[in-house]
Order: sequence, then structure tokens, then C-alpha cells
Amino acid sequence: MTKKIPTRIYLSEDEMPQYWYNLRAVMEHKPDPILHPGTLKPASAADMEGIFCKEPVRQELDESTKLVPIPQGIQDFYRAYRPSALIRAYYLEKELDTPAEIYYKFEGTNTSGSHKLNSAGPQAYYAKEEGLTSLTTETGAGQWGTAMAMACAFYGLDLTVYMVKVSSEQKPYRKAVMETYGAKVIPSPSDTTESGRKILETDPHTGGSLGCAISEAVETAVKTDKCRYVLGSVLNHVLLHQSIIGMETKAAMDKYGIKPDLIIGCAGGGSNLGGLIAPFMGEKLAGGKTGNLRFIAVEPASCPSFTRGRYAYDFGDTAKTTPLIRMQTLGNGFIPSSNHAGGLRYHGMNPILSRLYRDGYLEARSEVQTDVFDAAVRFMKVEGILPAPESSHAIKAAIDEALECKKTGEKKVILFGLTGTGYFDLSAYMAYNAKTMTDHIPSDEELARGFESIPDIPQNK
Amino acid sequence: MTKKIPTRIYLSEDEMPQYWYNLRAVMEHKPDPILHPGTLKPASAADMEGIFCKEPVRQELDESTKLVPIPQGIQDFYRAYRPSALIRAYYLEKELDTPAEIYYKFEGTNTSGSHKLNSAGPQAYYAKEEGLTSLTTETGAGQWGTAMAMACAFYGLDLTVYMVKVSSEQKPYRKAVMETYGAKVIPSPSDTTESGRKILETDPHTGGSLGCAISEAVETAVKTDKCRYVLGSVLNHVLLHQSIIGMETKAAMDKYGIKPDLIIGCAGGGSNLGGLIAPFMGEKLAGGKTGNLRFIAVEPASCPSFTRGRYAYDFGDTAKTTPLIRMQTLGNGFIPSSNHAGGLRYHGMNPILSRLYRDGYLEARSEVQTDVFDAAVRFMKVEGILPAPESSHAIKAAIDEALECKKTGEKKVILFGLTGTGYFDLSAYMAYNAKTMTDHIPSDEELARGFESIPDIPQNK
Repeated sequence: MTKKIPTRIYLSEDEMPQYWYNLRAVMEHKPDPILHPGTLKPASAADMEGIFCKEPVRQELDESTKLVPIPQGIQDFYRAYRPSALIRAYYLEKELDTPAEIYYKFEGTNTSGSHKLNSAGPQAYYAKEEGLTSLTTETGAGQWGTAMAMACAFYGLDLTVYMVKVSSEQKPYRKAVMETYGAKVIPSPSDTTESGRKILETDPHTGGSLGCAISEAVETAVKTDKCRYVLGSVLNHVLLHQSIIGMETKAAMDKYGIKPDLIIGCAGGGSNLGGLIAPFMGEKLAGGKTGNLRFIAVEPASCPSFTRGRYAYDFGDTAKTTPLIRMQTLGNGFIPSSNHAGGLRYHGMNPILSRLYRDGYLEARSEVQTDVFDAAVRFMKVEGILPAPESSHAIKAAIDEALECKKTGEKKVILFGLTGTGYFDLSAYMAYNAKTMTDHIPSDEELARGFESIPDIPQNK
Repeated sequence: MTKKIPTRIYLSEDEMPQYWYNLRAVMEHKPDPILHPGTLKPASAADMEGIFCKEPVRQELDESTKLVPIPQGIQDFYRAYRPSALIRAYYLEKELDTPAEIYYKFEGTNTSGSHKLNSAGPQAYYAKEEGLTSLTTETGAGQWGTAMAMACAFYGLDLTVYMVKVSSEQKPYRKAVMETYGAKVIPSPSDTTESGRKILETDPHTGGSLGCAISEAVETAVKTDKCRYVLGSVLNHVLLHQSIIGMETKAAMDKYGIKPDLIIGCAGGGSNLGGLIAPFMGEKLAGGKTGNLRFIAVEPASCPSFTRGRYAYDFGDTAKTTPLIRMQTLGNGFIPSSNHAGGLRYHGMNPILSRLYRDGYLEARSEVQTDVFDAAVRFMKVEGILPAPESSHAIKAAIDEALECKKTGEKKVILFGLTGTGYFDLSAYMAYNAKTMTDHIPSDEELARGFESIPDIPQNK
């Protein structure tokens, strides 16, 4: 490495990636097929096209195309906020007094505040190309809903967002951003759908749930002309779109001859981690010269789908309406402790990552949130950026690895994904500052109750 | 222009400016000297050093050094979040169907959310160099306080922020960010100072004011060992630090052979506008080949210090404790309508900009805020970025000029400053969406009452 590495590396426009990276094409053991919940047979494109847009469904099922060309219309969208910076953490290295080199890819400077926009754009683009006029989706904390609202404003589509009622009350500003971009935001459960009315009849004062919001969004999509439903995580086509993160990172690192030894990402549904590692993991799987390159997923101790979950076919939603996906799961009935701040509270994990974990290519660890916030604050005071609680799980692991290098004297090159800003999670920082933040690590009994919700089908024997 | 202009231009690290631009050095008519309020004689460095740090005071009085070298320790700070992007507004141009080329310099991606960090860093650096251990300041909406909290964390200084009480109650998250960076945030008026206690005795339930918070911050700085006070706008040294915006913009434009015809900025205290135009205005004043280059300040109709103010010596604060500054002013007793959303609610204007306006080098116009938000929403739907209400004043003027070009067929090159994000102003967007936003244009009688507060001294005859 002779070139001086700048603090921030931005690709120029003509260096921007023109392809997404489909990791399945180079995996020896592919993820198992998605199953139709009624027939337990592999789901076909036709099974899924009633709910999702056509091209994303095609991408969901495509296991052979390694480099997927990014359409010009989506490259145009990416240009409105990308490239994101690959940042050399010189200040953090100095603070830690470590011989390690630390880099992070920061996805939080766009208005949605996170990497979610990378898949929102493509999904809106494909809907427009297909001749649809509107989309529906759900949102919890609001990041995905905001990203979709921005994408739909850009491409000229109507959007209805079912926002978990308690979130829409606690985060009126998130709702305001979506509405300013022209989206219709409906607190869920609502009286606009059958599934919403049913829940309201039983429990008129419920604060709602993501599962319920998904049901409402899907129902509306199915019943509305020229309308489909979009989802922002877990699925393989979302991971594909998120590979723009890894493709940019790899191009920037190759330009300066930087070879990572460790790649770290936080893991909720897995889309940011999968996107970041895609081309690096692909090179390793294909037998490229990646040395001892390792990959680490960091998940919250309160929702440990990798480290304490099972590899089984499970539903994606708590209402058990989705196709069955073979993945690391805590069971669709697992309810993560509500005292956890971040958005990593999902029972399952993307099937590609689950497979890589089972096959030993991907490591995983879990962290309690007070440790995660300690790391976040240490990071932000020297690097300036206020990180999202989710992203801070990756910071925690990166700091631990860098401090380990300090002990051993190793000059490892550490790369992690910083997926978003903490602007919209300040109540969590307030709890941390006030030392009232706690965490709940589920007991074995609690996990066992979650596992009971995993469907009892032959494929899970 | 043969090179294709990319959507986002980032300078590389070795292209980053190493100098600030001191506009006074090339002005034929300098701003009038600051006066000591007791003697009405020009204030000396010694007069000001009891309150402010030494080097900023030296910079405040320096009228001859055109290019001021940026110390390495401040360049290090800037590298933690700069360069900011110069963005070609291709999508806005298309939306407006204009032959004009539109560019904007976006300062809103750092955690403080605005350009304020550009002066917070230098002021903290100089305090540290001088051997101080702590600083005090005031904040209203919180941008400046957040920027100072970040800078003090970076350089290892204690910081006390007096935050207008009503703001600290309405914006708990802004307070949380400052506290997370380690700052002590005190709602003002407080019982920690004499001036605070005095106000509380008279009116125990007051929501506070910026004037009161300034008094408390200054009092604490003066009474504390190794402590000084810092201010984030209006003063000339702040404008000097902000010239990093213009220097980066000019370097980026020069690189691609872009020559602006119009430079537009919003104007509150004037620091962002002055920083953006500095090297361009300097070139024009020095007789460089700038063609018909024009400069436009955009201010809120509710607080029109350029377009309806007087050019007179006035106090910087409502308590009439600061030195006297000759500037465009509505009178220190002028109270802008509280229904205005943005942070452009200051009675006075930086003296350099005031002088340039009097001498005809700088134009000004005022806008009502509903028109400003119309422009903001039109912008954000195609460019993606949610703009701060302040910055949106510049967007409004840029759109108007581009639409004028559409009529005349002129291919003007328009540059404007986008100073920050609207993340922390979402209640204003909510009012806009709900169509409850109004504005108040002061009557001539209201202005006359403000003018009465301008001191009746010989220099104002």
C-alpha cells in the first residue's frame, strides 16, 4: 500500500458500480427453495406475483446470474444520493491506540437516514415499469416507509404506508416526512381493511404490530387495481439491491489496494450485512485470493436468531400468511423484549445468510445494548457521526477486534457497515445517558416457547 | 465546458482548501469599526479578549490578510466531515424544464445537520490552543449548540450550553444529542447566573429568550477560570471560518470550468451566505473576470433586515450589553413574529454583508414562508433531500430565477447554498402539510417601534 489513504473515499461517477452481486450464483449449497404454505411445494413466480412486483419476484428466484445489470433508471436514482463515503476511521484508531486499520461504509447521509433507500428505489422503479400506479407497505420505526415515500415521489407512484399505531403516535415526525413526500400514512390496525377491522373488534385500543401492518398492506395491495406490496428486508431481491453497498466498497478498496481481513455488519433481517459482504464473500467462495478474510454478523442479545436460533422453515410474519422460508429463526411467535432500542427485532434471518452461517462461512455474535451504546458514544465523540443503535452493534464488534489487535500487535484491516444515523433514535440515547437503559436476554424457556411456533412440517424433521 | 459534469462533485483530500478567505482584505470600503459601548471608541482586542478567545478576536479585527492559512489541527477537524458535496441539480432542472444549470453546495450531512460546524471546530481548536479548559455558549433551535458539543468532544473541552427554555422543552432530542456528546445543557433562564436569577425573580414562568441565554453564557464565561464565550453567527471571524464553504465550491467549479452567473444564499446573521460568496465576491471586487456575476441574499419577509432595515450602529443583543456594530438592522428591540419556522429570526446582519449591500454588490429579497415551503417540497420530491426551512429561502429564489430563464431562454448558471437538513424542523413541515402555516409581514408601524431601539449616538446621525 503506497498511496496515502484519504479519510473519505468517494467513487467518481464513472467508477460507480453498474451491477448488483447475486451471491447465490457462486454458492455451492444454495438456500432451500421458498415453499407455498398450502402445498408445501416450491413457490412459483406466479404464486408470488399476486402480491409482489414481477421483476423482484424474478430476482427472488434467480440463482444463476452472478452480476445483475442495474437498469439506467435505477442508476439515475442512485446518483441522487450515492456514492456513500467509505471512511477510514483514523480518529477512532487513534482513540483506541490500535495497530489495526478500521474502515466503515456510511449509508446514513440520505434523507431516509439509512441504507433502506437502496432497495426502495429499485422496487418503485420496477413497479412503474410494470405499469402499476400505486404500492403499499408497512413500517415500524419508519425508516423503510420513509425510503419508500422518497422513491415513490421520485418515480411518480402513489404509496400507502401502514404504520404500527404506537410508532405513528411516538414518532409523529417520521410520519410527517412520509406525508411531505406525498405518501398516505395509516396507523395500523385501521378500519380500511378486513384484517384491521377484525383486530380492532377484538382489541379496540391495541397499539398494533408489524405483523398486523403487513397483513393490512398485503390485503390492500391485493384488492387494489394496479397495486402491489413491497417489503424492505429479509427477501433475496432486497439483499441483491443492497449489494450496491458492497460493490461500491469493493471498488473503493480495490482502487487503493486495501484488502480487508474482517468484515462486520449488524444483522436484523440481514439485508445490509448481505449487501455489504456480497462481492467479498463471492470472491472467497469462488476461491479468490482473499487470505484469511472472515465475516462477522452482530445481532442483539435480546433477539439472537443466528447464535441461538434454529435453521428451519418458518413463516415471515406472526400471522402465518407468508410463504415458508428456510432460515435461522427464533420462531414466528417469538416476541423480542420491547426494551431493545434498535430495529434488529425480527425473528428470522435472510435465507442466503442463514445458509452461509450453517456452512461456516459467516460467524455471528450477540451483544447487549448497554455495551453497544458504550461503543456508539466512544465512536461518535471522535468520528463525529451519531450512529443508529442498529449500526452500533457493528461498531461494538469492530472496536473489540481492534482492541484485540492492540494486544496481539496484529495490523488487521477491519471493515464495518454503518447503516444509518441515530437522529430518529434519540429517546434511546436519552435512556442511555440517564443510565436507565436495560436489556433482556431471553431465557432458554422463552426461546423454547418461540420454537413451538415453527411449523411442524415434514421439511422441518 | 467539455467535461461531463457529475451529479455530485467531491474534492479529493489533496484538493481541499488550505486557506480561509477574508473578504475585507479586498473591499474598497471596509465595514466600520466595532465600537466600545461605553466610550464609543473603536473596540480593541483587549476589550474583547475578556469574553472571546484570543485568535478569533485577532481574526475579527484583521482587515488585511486575504488568505488566512487554516491550521493543521483544524484541517484535521474538517476532514472528519468535509468535503461537502457540490451537487448539480439535474432532477430539479428537469422538473422545472429550464435551460438554466443549477448547482447547490450541501452542508447538511454532518451530525449537527448544518454549516455551523465549520466555525464550531475552529473556535474550539483555538480555545484548546490558548490553554482554556471550557467554553460557554447559547443555543435557540439547537444547531449551534450541537455543533459546539461535537467540536468540544473532538478537542477535549468542557462545554456549557444555555438553551432557551422553551426550546429545550420543545426539542428534547436536540438537548439529548448535545448531552450525548458530553455537553452540559442548562435551560435558560436558570438560577446558575445573576442575570438568570434576576429574570426568574421578575417572571418565574418565562420561556426564556436568546438574549437572556447570551447574557447567562457570557456571565458564566467571564466568572469561570480558563473559560471563554463563543458565538456562532454575525461576527466577522465566524464568516471567515465559513468561507471554507465558498473555497471548496470555487475549487470544485474551477475544476470543471463552471462559471456561476448567480450566487444565492439565505440570510439570518449572514455567516453561511458570507462564507459561500467570499472567494467569488473577492474575485469580482478585485476586478477578475466574473462577467455579470450577481449575488442575492434571501431573507424571511417576517424579519427583513436587508430589504427594510437601517444601516446603523446597534447592539447585537436585546439586553444591550455587546459592543456596537454598524450593520443592517431592524433594531435590537425588534421581535420577529414567532410563527416563522426558520432560524433566520435575527434583527441584525453581519457587517461585511451589510457594507456590500449598501455599496450595491449584494442584492436582497424577502420571501413569505408558505412560498418558501412550496419551493422546499418541490425540491425535495425530485432531489431527495429534505431541506431546512432556512435553506429553503435560497431554494425559492433559485427556482424563481430558473423559471425566469425558462421564459427568456437564458442558460444561466445558478449556484445556491443548502445549509442544512430539515430533520429538526418537522413540526414546521407538519404545519405546512396541514395548511395551517401562516406568516406575518411586519407593518411599517411595527418596524418603526423596532427602529426606536437603535441607540441614539452621534455615529448614527
